[in-house]
Amino acid sequence: MPTEPIPIIGGTGALGAGLATRWAKAGVPVVLGSRSAERGEEAAARVREAVPGAEVSGMENGDAAKQGQIVFLTVPFRSQSENLNNLREALSPGQLLVDCTVPLAAAISGKATRSIGVWQGSAAQQAQEMVPEGVTVVSALHTVGAPTLADLEAELGEDVLVCGDKKKDKTRVARLIELIPGLRAVNAGPLEMARIVEQLTPMLISVNSRYKVHAGIQLTGLPDSDHWA
Amino acid sequence: MPTEPIPIIGGTGALGAGLATRWAKAGVPVVLGSRSAERGEEAAARVREAVPGAEVSGMENGDAAKQGQIVFLTVPFRSQSENLNNLREALSPGQLLVDCTVPLAAAISGKATRSIGVWQGSAAQQAQEMVPEGVTVVSALHTVGAPTLADLEAELGEDVLVCGDKKKDKTRVARLIELIPGLRAVNAGPLEMARIVEQLTPMLISVNSRYKVHAGIQLTGLPDSDHWA
Repeated sequence: MPTEPIPIIGGTGALGAGLATRWAKAGVPVVLGSRSAERGEEAAARVREAVPGAEVSGMENGDAAKQGQIVFLTVPFRSQSENLNNLREALSPGQLLVDCTVPLAAAISGKATRSIGVWQGSAAQQAQEMVPEGVTVVSALHTVGAPTLADLEAELGEDVLVCGDKKKDKTRVARLIELIPGLRAVNAGPLEMARIVEQLTPMLISVNSRYKVHAGIQLTGLPDSDHWA
Repeated sequence: MPTEPIPIIGGTGALGAGLATRWAKAGVPVVLGSRSAERGEEAAARVREAVPGAEVSGMENGDAAKQGQIVFLTVPFRSQSENLNNLREALSPGQLLVDCTVPLAAAISGKATRSIGVWQGSAAQQAQEMVPEGVTVVSALHTVGAPTLADLEAELGEDVLVCGDKKKDKTRVARLIELIPGLRAVNAGPLEMARIVEQLTPMLISVNSRYKVHAGIQLTGLPDSDHWA
């Protein structure tokens, strides 16, 4: 069990708050980052209400990013670039940035069932280009629905496809993800594979609206053993 | 149960032969198309050996395409365009063409874990542009592994994401897919969604090589009821 907190940049959004709630429930300390420390603290108070006794606090994004080695970025794609610019002074070599953003066409007033092309190939690769030297990007958590995370009554049972160039880095992220019961982290390949994995979100959004559900992804045929040992 | 056979263009390839074996096992008649009638018949003989009593025959692709209303195209992407050109005279209005091709970079001596960009957005959309007027393309069966299909001892338990512009057409295809025990057809949206669904194959190929498995896809959270009623 990690003792240092997990910083979530954009922690007041639906995905960030959902993750925070689940980690808090699992006994993991979390720091919710927001543009304003006040809004971060308000979001943290909501998590503490959902999970009494949770070690969750709120801070300004830059301060939050300094609280742990593995920082999750859960902002909408529209704000990804701005947030990464703002984090340049906060992030330091050796840290991992877990990019959860998805380039939905909704970012440019298009549909959430379509995506936009990112020059670098994926939001994660854009993030890798923007973080300070020595900071490594891992891509994950695109397909886990925020409403399902936030609803502690909902039983999770799905996979999280993790992309990154080094297995060692992905393993560290996978260990945090798998602290949430019902989530299995699967090694989906190098960071460039985020081009594909990020696209699952608009497909799932389309399925969700058609079936009126919160669908997730699972890979069949994988071994039951620890994937990251 | 359909009484007319299912034509499979490229039926001598691994995916076509695997599908033929499973449908034959389910009692569905199949016609395997190939460039030469002889090679088609040889492939059919192999299926009849695997499934004694199976109603499977082999023909030249153009002849095969005339044997049923719902034609499956299971050729490598490298040959998709050539095959569709050759089928121009064989296909007729009202038929459905189920495109199973995936634009793997392997088609141009690249990696099977990467894809190439298709001008129309996806192999399926390219197919829609190339079929005769009145023929409708549905996209499916990209993520079901040929080795798993061919091995009748292997228990299937995965989803097939089906893309197409009309639910009526997708339903007809789904009914055929679901004749194979262990396959569930999921409505993944309009044909343009094939841009995303086709990309799942290189991702799964990457997972397969890493985990030494034949992985498939399953969506979690969908209702148990008939998706196509």
